[in-house]
Amino acid sequence: MAVKIITISRQFGSGGRTLGKLLAKDLGFEYYDREIIDRVAGETGFSRDYVAANGEYAPGNSIISYSFEAAGTPGIMNGMTTTDYIYSIQRKKIIEIANAGKPCIIVGRCADYILKEFDGVLNVFLYADLDYRAKRVVATYGESDTKPEKRITDKDKKRAANYKHFTDREWGRPNNYDVCLNSGYLGVEKCAAIIEDIVRSSN
Amino acid sequence: MAVKIITISRQFGSGGRTLGKLLAKDLGFEYYDREIIDRVAGETGFSRDYVAANGEYAPGNSIISYSFEAAGTPGIMNGMTTTDYIYSIQRKKIIEIANAGKPCIIVGRCADYILKEFDGVLNVFLYADLDYRAKRVVATYGESDTKPEKRITDKDKKRAANYKHFTDREWGRPNNYDVCLNSGYLGVEKCAAIIEDIVRSSN
Repeated sequence: MAVKIITISRQFGSGGRTLGKLLAKDLGFEYYDREIIDRVAGETGFSRDYVAANGEYAPGNSIISYSFEAAGTPGIMNGMTTTDYIYSIQRKKIIEIANAGKPCIIVGRCADYILKEFDGVLNVFLYADLDYRAKRVVATYGESDTKPEKRITDKDKKRAANYKHFTDREWGRPNNYDVCLNSGYLGVEKCAAIIEDIVRSSN
Repeated sequence: MAVKIITISRQFGSGGRTLGKLLAKDLGFEYYDREIIDRVAGETGFSRDYVAANGEYAPGNSIISYSFEAAGTPGIMNGMTTTDYIYSIQRKKIIEIANAGKPCIIVGRCADYILKEFDGVLNVFLYADLDYRAKRVVATYGESDTKPEKRITDKDKKRAANYKHFTDREWGRPNNYDVCLNSGYLGVEKCAAIIEDIVRSSN
């Protein structure tokens, strides 16, 4: 079965975006990451920042999320929490992208789970040691008052909680994916080469 | 850093032995799996079956294991449980193999953890969906009164408990390994090709 869609789940700081962009360039696939945020923001009226924060990092059962109503669309959330509503629109956008039929790469956002009934999907999990990721986070996003190790574990905990809420699966458990690569050991370029080989030999 | 040692951890039925033998043949590496059992049995006086059952599948804190003394070596266990004693000899044998310096493949037995301070080690985790493994288990080991799915989950639970006891790490957590491959999706031959490429490009 030829691979047409690559989903990339990734530990924070492991280089998931860099990997996705490399693959998109080398394979000629479309690349979806923040583009999904734009589409969800466009449909819901929420700000990009709000979608970004709630689309991957919010647990579904946050009390705070009960107090909102979708901006400009009263009644449309039908009693859903904001997080559930954003997830439902995000899910719809991901399915639209998959159904459009163009080879593509989707980073994060439970895409591995959302597309589990689709053919030709390769699910990748990217991870690395904390030291490696801490250095990458500072190089990529800069210093902050919070130590990079704490920023990483906070983000990963939120991603795991978000994934668990919407999929009832354990984030980062190998069996959810087809290949899991340690970018700290292999380097992002080698990870890309391995995935490109899998994709090319699937045709 | 050139890869000289490949450790293979594997979910039961995912094809770890087949993968290890393929790699050994293609790369010209020595292969250690049951050979380690022979060495441990030789040193301890326990039977091969007893070493096999206790070397990878026994939790370290089994009450039963307190009631034995190493066959023919009274006093040598120094108050250790049989499981801890077998692990200590198994660990020694794995370190001897690594120190011998010949390129090799070691299947199971916490080798990824035992060799964590060694250079040139590539740690692989092999896994697959339960359906794929159930078919493989019946084809490889034959039918039994117990359903293959139950045989698989029992074995995996024991491997996880054994690994947790001796390493204090979660068995099958990607971060313990350098590459994790789904043999049900990729096929064992493709898994071998990916690992061989990583090894060859490390030289």
